[in-house]
Amino acid sequence: MHDIVLVGAGRIGRIHARNAALNPRLRLAGIVDPMEGAAQALAAEWNTTVTTLDDALDDPAVAGVVIASSTDTHLEYSLRAAAAGKAVFCEKPIDQDLARARSAAAGLSDARLLLAFNRRFDPNFQALKARLDSGAVGPLESLQITSNDPSPPPPSYVAISGGLFKDMAIHDFDMARWLLGEEPVEVFASGSCLVDPEIGKLGDVDTARTLLRTASGKLCVISNSRRSGFGYDQRIEAYASAGMVRADNVTESTVQVWGEGGASADRFQNFFLDRYAEAYRREMDHFADILDGAPPSVGYADGVAALALAEAAAESARSGKVARP
Amino acid sequence: MHDIVLVGAGRIGRIHARNAALNPRLRLAGIVDPMEGAAQALAAEWNTTVTTLDDALDDPAVAGVVIASSTDTHLEYSLRAAAAGKAVFCEKPIDQDLARARSAAAGLSDARLLLAFNRRFDPNFQALKARLDSGAVGPLESLQITSNDPSPPPPSYVAISGGLFKDMAIHDFDMARWLLGEEPVEVFASGSCLVDPEIGKLGDVDTARTLLRTASGKLCVISNSRRSGFGYDQRIEAYASAGMVRADNVTESTVQVWGEGGASADRFQNFFLDRYAEAYRREMDHFADILDGAPPSVGYADGVAALALAEAAAESARSGKVARP
Amino acid sequence: MHDIVLVGAGRIGRIHARNAALNPRLRLAGIVDPMEGAAQALAAEWNTTVTTLDDALDDPAVAGVVIASSTDTHLEYSLRAAAAGKAVFCEKPIDQDLARARSAAAGLSDARLLLAFNRRFDPNFQALKARLDSGAVGPLESLQITSNDPSPPPPSYVAISGGLFKDMAIHDFDMARWLLGEEPVEVFASGSCLVDPEIGKLGDVDTARTLLRTASGKLCVISNSRRSGFGYDQRIEAYASAGMVRADNVTESTVQVWGEGGASADRFQNFFLDRYAEAYRREMDHFADILDGAPPSVGYADGVAALALAEAAAESARSGKVARP
Amino acid sequence: MHDIVLVGAGRIGRIHARNAALNPRLRLAGIVDPMEGAAQALAAEWNTTVTTLDDALDDPAVAGVVIASSTDTHLEYSLRAAAAGKAVFCEKPIDQDLARARSAAAGLSDARLLLAFNRRFDPNFQALKARLDSGAVGPLESLQITSNDPSPPPPSYVAISGGLFKDMAIHDFDMARWLLGEEPVEVFASGSCLVDPEIGKLGDVDTARTLLRTASGKLCVISNSRRSGFGYDQRIEAYASAGMVRADNVTESTVQVWGEGGASADRFQNFFLDRYAEAYRREMDHFADILDGAPPSVGYADGVAALALAEAAAESARSGKVARP
Repeated sequence: MHDIVLVGAGRIGRIHARNAALNPRLRLAGIVDPMEGAAQALAAEWNTTVTTLDDALDDPAVAGVVIASSTDTHLEYSLRAAAAGKAVFCEKPIDQDLARARSAAAGLSDARLLLAFNRRFDPNFQALKARLDSGAVGPLESLQITSNDPSPPPPSYVAISGGLFKDMAIHDFDMARWLLGEEPVEVFASGSCLVDPEIGKLGDVDTARTLLRTASGKLCVISNSRRSGFGYDQRIEAYASAGMVRADNVTESTVQVWGEGGASADRFQNFFLDRYAEAYRREMDHFADILDGAPPSVGYADGVAALALAEAAAESARSGKVARP
Repeated sequence: MHDIVLVGAGRIGRIHARNAALNPRLRLAGIVDPMEGAAQALAAEWNTTVTTLDDALDDPAVAGVVIASSTDTHLEYSLRAAAAGKAVFCEKPIDQDLARARSAAAGLSDARLLLAFNRRFDPNFQALKARLDSGAVGPLESLQITSNDPSPPPPSYVAISGGLFKDMAIHDFDMARWLLGEEPVEVFASGSCLVDPEIGKLGDVDTARTLLRTASGKLCVISNSRRSGFGYDQRIEAYASAGMVRADNVTESTVQVWGEGGASADRFQNFFLDRYAEAYRREMDHFADILDGAPPSVGYADGVAALALAEAAAESARSGKVARP
Repeated sequence: MHDIVLVGAGRIGRIHARNAALNPRLRLAGIVDPMEGAAQALAAEWNTTVTTLDDALDDPAVAGVVIASSTDTHLEYSLRAAAAGKAVFCEKPIDQDLARARSAAAGLSDARLLLAFNRRFDPNFQALKARLDSGAVGPLESLQITSNDPSPPPPSYVAISGGLFKDMAIHDFDMARWLLGEEPVEVFASGSCLVDPEIGKLGDVDTARTLLRTASGKLCVISNSRRSGFGYDQRIEAYASAGMVRADNVTESTVQVWGEGGASADRFQNFFLDRYAEAYRREMDHFADILDGAPPSVGYADGVAALALAEAAAESARSGKVARP
Repeated sequence: MHDIVLVGAGRIGRIHARNAALNPRLRLAGIVDPMEGAAQALAAEWNTTVTTLDDALDDPAVAGVVIASSTDTHLEYSLRAAAAGKAVFCEKPIDQDLARARSAAAGLSDARLLLAFNRRFDPNFQALKARLDSGAVGPLESLQITSNDPSPPPPSYVAISGGLFKDMAIHDFDMARWLLGEEPVEVFASGSCLVDPEIGKLGDVDTARTLLRTASGKLCVISNSRRSGFGYDQRIEAYASAGMVRADNVTESTVQVWGEGGASADRFQNFFLDRYAEAYRREMDHFADILDGAPPSVGYADGVAALALAEAAAESARSGKVARP
């Protein structure tokens, strides 16, 4: 049983609080949030107390810190927690600025830091990777990652999001690296504003295609849109020498209606917290592994590498030229 | 190249005319129909002539006769064609009366007679049987045959149809025998009038379930309705000791629409002539095999056996008791 | 927050303990089990204490009792708990003996008793019922319930199980009643021993088909086997006047492998505790509703009615005749 | 009934011969092929005669010419047939050389020329386009075209093929134009040799991704490989503002096997002549429309435009830069 403290009582923080509280290997020892009401409500819900980051880092009983605060604090809090000898669970992205993220290497490259790319913990994508790793379809050759949100965020969110590539596609860059088993060396991206003109006014795109190429010539296409029109569209197709493995979207139930128009399946899951509920549970469980001594399966260097790809994609979309991460 | 004559220029006769005319091993040498206009139109369409059954049977150049006339003529014409030494392609059913069908044994049991249970020639059901015969899933144990029409026929058709069990389920009794590899020895059926009260007034049912049991205890359920509400519903599930093989419905295309309500497939094929177009082609090709010397894969005895099951089912539905074919 | 006590620390009891402990509206106030070790281990796991049924019924703080002990105690414990004024969550079946179950009516018909037919709480079957209830496909006409276990239980279990109809099909009889909205008045069943000869030696069957018929002529087929060969096979097809609603099996993930042999989906869920994990959670949540004052959605009378159908089916399978529940 | 002459008795010529011969609106009046044996065999099969292109063009009874000869003759024969006043059915591509193809504009832009991009006539892709055109999912925004062969051709074929982009992807460029409803103005392509090193030695690629962008910002990705490992992989996903329409691969039957490993569908169709059998039939039927006076739905200009995109893609794959068609 490891004591951990959660920093951030917002939407994603509440998910982590629940998963930590229900994990038999973890004890949720405190909640930190500048919004006192939010911290207190969450602490009450899970029968723990409100604390501060300083107190938590000073407390030798606290073994780990979960950082689910705003993006601009991820790097600083991670560095402080690592310096205090705590294991770190840090929400993605590690930072929005690649240079700053890279400069933290001294403080973080040896840290027991789990960078919470939740999709690596999704049962469907894990099953896909297991099939590939089993060798059943031969070596991977190319990859199609489809990652579309159900509907666009408000422009106010877009304005501080870091842009589609760093905010949304960063998950897909991490998936690409995870599955390709090789670093992309060339990035070409093309983006458009087709969904919401307000997004374009903010200098961002809402629809994009990104083409990654590794040194050995493996190819990966990432398709992103801020709006699918039908739900949370999260799919992967992995072409290998002897076949293809794919992970499909998740529906709300197995029910179908067969009528004059044909067979209609149930709706696709629409909300990322539903779609990835099990992934969030599993990544928290992996944090317990780390507190037990296991190395993080995804860490600081992965956060930097995904960010580098995101910056390269954004640069390519601007310049119309191939960029290198 | 074998000369054959078609008797019957109605809906199903036109299908057989086309398949015979386009089969490189057959020559459609004549059309017989009491409705002169129908015979002439069909003969013109396929560049052949109108003839009579007498002339066709007398003509030594005619090797085979396709009987697609009204049901009450099937038995008589088959007997005459067999007596004249012709190979016979006879539409199902062999007759509506079991005693009469059985009494024809002397004239037909050795005949080169193909009884046209078209579903045996459907590529999907053939693929299902091939999987079972391959042994990949072990011996068959039980069977679910679903066979629902898109929408009910007019009461005028029902009145002369012989009733749901002889008219519609007779195909399913044949499929059951074909797949079970063993004769059903007990039949229990329950029928209702849920679709069209006019059908009930005619003493018939429009919805039924029939349970067949073989001597070794294999079980088969046949589900019938005159109206599915969504298309032509023709499915089979075959449970074997190491798994299950199933054949599903056919859609009009592979297109799906993914929208807010979920994924919608294209419509199911609705019309039996579309659904079984390839089956009709293949059964005509099998008639060419027979003319080349092959034994019929399904013949007179199969027609009688299916009719016996249909009569037993109708009797069981009336009496509420198990019947024996 | 309602205090409840769990009776029975076996496999299903442990599921209920977990769901009660994690439900924010319930407090697991004690565990009862004659096997002291099992009770203590489960109490320790969920931070509660071991108690006795007598003490629990005497304790005014205990609002509800969850009965997950052996089947032969269900009726007695339910009566005692009801007499003590407790709300009752009773595992299925209410009893194996119909006469005995009926004779308990005086003590139980007004009880706040939830009979735990878990499938009514499965999200897939609930979604199916919601579609039917919405009227989108018109009134229900016939039903196909498929309910096959992955592999047969040991003969020692079969010997005390009450037989396939009472042990396994009882769930399906409840589903049939729930969905038909009308009581079956005729039952015909046919059973075979095709899976394990030891089951036959015990006088039981391992494969069965049961045909139910309501007064208005609605038809329902239940297909049961102790072994599917491919996983936990739990499906429903509900035919209505304007189409069909179906709930399909659940796979372990959305992953497919596309290879030379075609597309292969992931395995079907194999274990009932996985397949119905959410159903168990929801039925415990419904017990909290009852403790809050809601009427049970499924209770004593439903347990008796399902048992009556199971007895009728067993009788029909023996006699070869239609039976009435 | 229009008389047409077929030029080319090779594999694709034989398909066109069959479809012309079986089309009630066409009469196959002659076969032209420098390989006399091939011409005679095909003429015999369909009961027609061997002729020469000169004779055919001189014969006023000949209304149309089907050009299914080698690619290097397409342009010349089309020009000659058009000059002779014949309607032209020309196999794709119009030529391998863009400049030459463009220079033929004077002779062909007004010709009644059907450029045989067969996929436009596939029932699945037609159904997809019909859904888009119906407006049911709003305006198209982006497109994913997947087009992989089952297995690579021999290097000898690759050597004369014109390269992956002109030989294989040209179909996809035409599909993109057909569906986007707008011309792509930017092309970025990346190609690799991952399947067969011999293809690389010939200076070609066997795996590629191409990204097209239209003036309004619509995006299209084309995925190509010379080897899928599982069959003929021909799929489209069309994202629109209110959902997505997709056309999936075609399986050999609807049969599934459910076993311990899960559900396995039947194999995917493997051979392009099977997959597009109906498309070939429909495009020949459209040639009959043209002979009846209808304008070609796809013609010379489409052939040039697709070729321009193929050249741009090949150039981009060489240079690593965006190219313009």
